[in-house]
Amino acid sequence: MRSSRRSVVDPFIVMDVMEAARALEATGRQVIYMEVGQPGTGAPRAASKALTRAMAAGPLGYTVALGLPELRARIARMYGDWYDVDLDPSRVVITPGSSGGFLLAFTALFDTGDRVGIGAPGYPSYRQILRALDLQPVDLPTALENRYQPVPSDFAGMDLAGLLVASPANPTGTMLDVTAMRALIEATQAQGAAFISDEIYHGIEYGAKAVTALQITDETYVINSFSKYFSMTGWRVGWMVVPKDHVRIVERIAQNMFICAPHASQVAALAAMDATDELQRNMDVYRANRALMLQGLPQAGFTKIAPPDGAFYVYADVSDLTADSRAFADEILQVAGVAVTPGLDFDPVRGHTTLRFSYARSTADITEGLARLKDFMNAR
Amino acid sequence: MRSSRRSVVDPFIVMDVMEAARALEATGRQVIYMEVGQPGTGAPRAASKALTRAMAAGPLGYTVALGLPELRARIARMYGDWYDVDLDPSRVVITPGSSGGFLLAFTALFDTGDRVGIGAPGYPSYRQILRALDLQPVDLPTALENRYQPVPSDFAGMDLAGLLVASPANPTGTMLDVTAMRALIEATQAQGAAFISDEIYHGIEYGAKAVTALQITDETYVINSFSKYFSMTGWRVGWMVVPKDHVRIVERIAQNMFICAPHASQVAALAAMDATDELQRNMDVYRANRALMLQGLPQAGFTKIAPPDGAFYVYADVSDLTADSRAFADEILQVAGVAVTPGLDFDPVRGHTTLRFSYARSTADITEGLARLKDFMNAR
Repeated sequence: MRSSRRSVVDPFIVMDVMEAARALEATGRQVIYMEVGQPGTGAPRAASKALTRAMAAGPLGYTVALGLPELRARIARMYGDWYDVDLDPSRVVITPGSSGGFLLAFTALFDTGDRVGIGAPGYPSYRQILRALDLQPVDLPTALENRYQPVPSDFAGMDLAGLLVASPANPTGTMLDVTAMRALIEATQAQGAAFISDEIYHGIEYGAKAVTALQITDETYVINSFSKYFSMTGWRVGWMVVPKDHVRIVERIAQNMFICAPHASQVAALAAMDATDELQRNMDVYRANRALMLQGLPQAGFTKIAPPDGAFYVYADVSDLTADSRAFADEILQVAGVAVTPGLDFDPVRGHTTLRFSYARSTADITEGLARLKDFMNAR
Repeated sequence: MRSSRRSVVDPFIVMDVMEAARALEATGRQVIYMEVGQPGTGAPRAASKALTRAMAAGPLGYTVALGLPELRARIARMYGDWYDVDLDPSRVVITPGSSGGFLLAFTALFDTGDRVGIGAPGYPSYRQILRALDLQPVDLPTALENRYQPVPSDFAGMDLAGLLVASPANPTGTMLDVTAMRALIEATQAQGAAFISDEIYHGIEYGAKAVTALQITDETYVINSFSKYFSMTGWRVGWMVVPKDHVRIVERIAQNMFICAPHASQVAALAAMDATDELQRNMDVYRANRALMLQGLPQAGFTKIAPPDGAFYVYADVSDLTADSRAFADEILQVAGVAVTPGLDFDPVRGHTTLRFSYARSTADITEGLARLKDFMNAR
């Protein structure tokens, strides 16, 4: 049967690692998961409770396409609390995860063949979703001295239709401060390009508070999700903030592409937003895990790492250990029983010599994972 | 801020009607919902219970992209039970609703500019999702004598890359029998085009069992959902069956576009599949409602209707009453307090003179809605 050229997207390698890990566990091995960017914790208890109540109260049918009004209002209020930004709730669009946000944003903003700049290394699905929509991802190789974030000179004169940045970034955990973010926004707008800010790791920060693009401009798409800080990966619910005159554009696409984000997840997400104590306990775990990683990885022999500002990843340069990160990751899985992600997912060129370690799971898992990595490297 | 040409999709009018109805209710009026294709019932009780148990048991993180293996296996088994089709579970892909299925199918099968045939009248989002992906929907105006279903002569020599059919159809409720389905499949395959069968209303049938394309060929995409028969609209979970050699193609797109369907919804859906008694009680309601509609609509003055084979809609020719179905639907909402869908959603050309009535809600609602429609028409 026919298939399209646009469907020839690279696999999302971390998902294949996840599948390989599952297969290994099925043989009786116990695997430590340091591959996937998902908290070991579930949705906050208040979220589950709210959903159980809602299921008893009546059917959870379609919501309107833009999402439950009370959830949109609560998110707008969060921008006041977190960033001192006064946000009109009508600009908040509830999406089926940040994945749904990317589909909506790219469709609303770009036409076939348009060039969209993305930092390398970066979240792999940016590139693949752009390709699947017949848009043209333009990798901007970032520099260590810029903490792996793009700077205006990386895309000067490139005729981009858009620029997509992430802060804190995946896989590096580095952040853009207000000055760096403003420089990128101004350079992008000067080109007539759209600025998209992926803020999915906001809330998971270890020093400074992450900067939202909305502190600088209303003329931007901000994409966020309940998956990370709110610990609700599998629930597929997130949000976008869009310029006022784009709400109706996005609404029409959302009506047709998704109808709505999952109603149950929206109910749970609303309750999760007030579960501050539980979410802060999760943060205590990430802080402890981060400290363990920054100590344990070098001890194991992964010395070329930088402390992340946010998110729950450490990106390691392993060029002294391998030229084939995919084979190396597979060896680590099969021999050490630790699942890690080859850098190729994030940087098709330089990712042959990098790995991403996630420390999103429990501290016990991280301790065990680091011990296994140390043994593995000693025996190598 | 820039926006794309591909984002200029028509609104999904029924969603706008839904919003107008909500606004009317906010003023204190009580509205009868005969516009949206969603059951008045919620998910089966067994589904809610299973989810409550699962939430207590542990985190609901990402599932693998193709979905929970036990749900895929259960769906494959259903094809044996319902159609006597022996289906390999590895060909079943869990999707975020049928909406997610369309995005995956269109992306897997078609490239920019490809022409895809869809019957008119038909589900509006077919057209809009195709456009948003820069594909070209080709309306095939169907004939009353073909019960508003396409026949091979409707697309002979049209150079289509694909044909998408629905049986039972929305908005007409008509079905394709095995002979008609086979003729369409053979004519489509003879053109080298892909055949996509939207089977979302399967299970909601009033006489003959609906035919699945899988009874005739493995070289097809079948799209289905838990929204209708399983009464789980807001849960955004559905499935596709694809040819064996397309599983990996679809998996890669799904990994990137969606990561996975909502985990909670997958858990609930699995339990819903065994809730036969409750689902059959829902069917009793649809049967009663259908009988009321077929009696009450003509009494109210909507005489040009045909009995539906399946689904929960009546499509009415109102050309003797209006040339502007959108204004007419708005008048019915504002005056009678009954929300109905203008045919324009389903047929951009002939829909100016048609309306769709949904009878998916409770029998009490249908009785009240029909009484209001009768009063409204008498006073007109």
